[in-house]
Amino acid sequence: MMKTLQQVETIGELRRELKAARIQGKRIGFVPTMGYLHEGHLSLVEQAKQTCDLIVMSIFVNPLQFGPNEDFERYPRDLERDSRMAATAGVDLLFTPSVEEMYPTAVKTNITVSGVSEPLCGRSRPGHFDGVATVVMKLFQIVQPDFAFFGQKDAQQVAVIEQMVRDLSVPVEIIPCPIVRESDGLAMSSRNVYLAPEERKQATVLHRSLRRAKELLGDGKLPAEIRAEMVQMIQQEPLADIDYIEILTYPDLTPLDSVSSGQKLVIALAVRFGRTRLIDNLITTL
Amino acid sequence: MMKTLQQVETIGELRRELKAARIQGKRIGFVPTMGYLHEGHLSLVEQAKQTCDLIVMSIFVNPLQFGPNEDFERYPRDLERDSRMAATAGVDLLFTPSVEEMYPTAVKTNITVSGVSEPLCGRSRPGHFDGVATVVMKLFQIVQPDFAFFGQKDAQQVAVIEQMVRDLSVPVEIIPCPIVRESDGLAMSSRNVYLAPEERKQATVLHRSLRRAKELLGDGKLPAEIRAEMVQMIQQEPLADIDYIEILTYPDLTPLDSVSSGQKLVIALAVRFGRTRLIDNLITTL
Repeated sequence: MMKTLQQVETIGELRRELKAARIQGKRIGFVPTMGYLHEGHLSLVEQAKQTCDLIVMSIFVNPLQFGPNEDFERYPRDLERDSRMAATAGVDLLFTPSVEEMYPTAVKTNITVSGVSEPLCGRSRPGHFDGVATVVMKLFQIVQPDFAFFGQKDAQQVAVIEQMVRDLSVPVEIIPCPIVRESDGLAMSSRNVYLAPEERKQATVLHRSLRRAKELLGDGKLPAEIRAEMVQMIQQEPLADIDYIEILTYPDLTPLDSVSSGQKLVIALAVRFGRTRLIDNLITTL
Repeated sequence: MMKTLQQVETIGELRRELKAARIQGKRIGFVPTMGYLHEGHLSLVEQAKQTCDLIVMSIFVNPLQFGPNEDFERYPRDLERDSRMAATAGVDLLFTPSVEEMYPTAVKTNITVSGVSEPLCGRSRPGHFDGVATVVMKLFQIVQPDFAFFGQKDAQQVAVIEQMVRDLSVPVEIIPCPIVRESDGLAMSSRNVYLAPEERKQATVLHRSLRRAKELLGDGKLPAEIRAEMVQMIQQEPLADIDYIEILTYPDLTPLDSVSSGQKLVIALAVRFGRTRLIDNLITTL
């Protein structure tokens, strides 16, 4: 039988619900999202259900993490569909605050995580990870979860949040979860809906280039050589416009000139198709 | 009968102790300090005992909030004396972490509170309130108190922390407590121990100037006039070297050219006597 999903829009109401659960000793799992749910989000809920007694999902398109020329306004939203999907997946509490509920006055407090937030998307999207760190910290204070679940598609986001949680001793365990892909390999993303049919077709090159990169790593190729071959592969798709392709240590995200056995690394990329910017990555240990 | 004080040095041990208290439904009060306790600190404990069932005090001289040329190294420390005083005052748990326990690796996460942290001590001590906000947030994550008690001598610190707590929805209630003064009016401060006898004598001018400022406010004088008279008063003490004297709105800390009825404001000052920098303030509503 499907559990009943309860939707709450205010911090106060959410806290009241959670207080009762906490007194009962329930383990609280938290899945923060920006909504427009897909199988990737649902896999986080599935994972949360393995270890937690009560699953809280938040849906909040956080203005702090969008740059002035980014897609905050047009970011896809469909709360009714999300609510049905969350209920079916087994979410207990769906927290859907308005921007006014989260930020009733101008936010003066900003959290910066230096180091890991600087390369990759941090370079392309100045301020993005400050916005992410700040809203995630606020959501952690509101929900006070025992566990929080994040998709590895945003591998840098996971690294930033893990660093923040460690630095500030936040009492939550971060659980990174594997990327979920379409059958042709494209990483699930709410932004995939932006893609025109021809862009969608060409976007499969991202995952193909990552798989090829992993092969080349296995063959002992150097990061610079692998990167060059990925650039070439992706540039064969006429609609692809590369933002970055990088091979870095993980989770420290420092440059890697050569690789040695036992090294954990991430091959990460961001590529534009028209107005749509897609990211993907592959984390592996040699 | 005096309660037994338990001293813990690690985050893990403190959390274990607090978990037990929390399950018993005890209300946890937190008094964060840098040690070298005086009557001001003890008044915070006294206040905490009014509303809380379990009192946690931390003693941690936080390197993040000291500038490179400030007094981190020579800041007075006497843990044995502090521990006796805390026990007598009724502290249940005394948390005395080492710098290595708090920051086992270089801290990458920084919290900035713009606006309120910028004037006054924020201008004289760049980075100071980032260090304060960051360590207080970390301590809040470790202790997870219901109430936290701060002295109004650091009025700007209280404003910064209240803004952070509001912005990040930290589940703690901040209780500001009145300044405690020596019989001659000097605000209690761990740094008073630095003062040579003649400096100590002249330092009473700070409180006298604040009382005079309040009189002048009552007489309808303008902030600029009041400030000028305070400068004159303080400069009569040959060892006094003024860092700042300001009259600002409280808690927003914005400039105030004229004052109107109902306006809450702070008269704040920082003055050096030799190598010792003292601060004091007076908060009042017209």
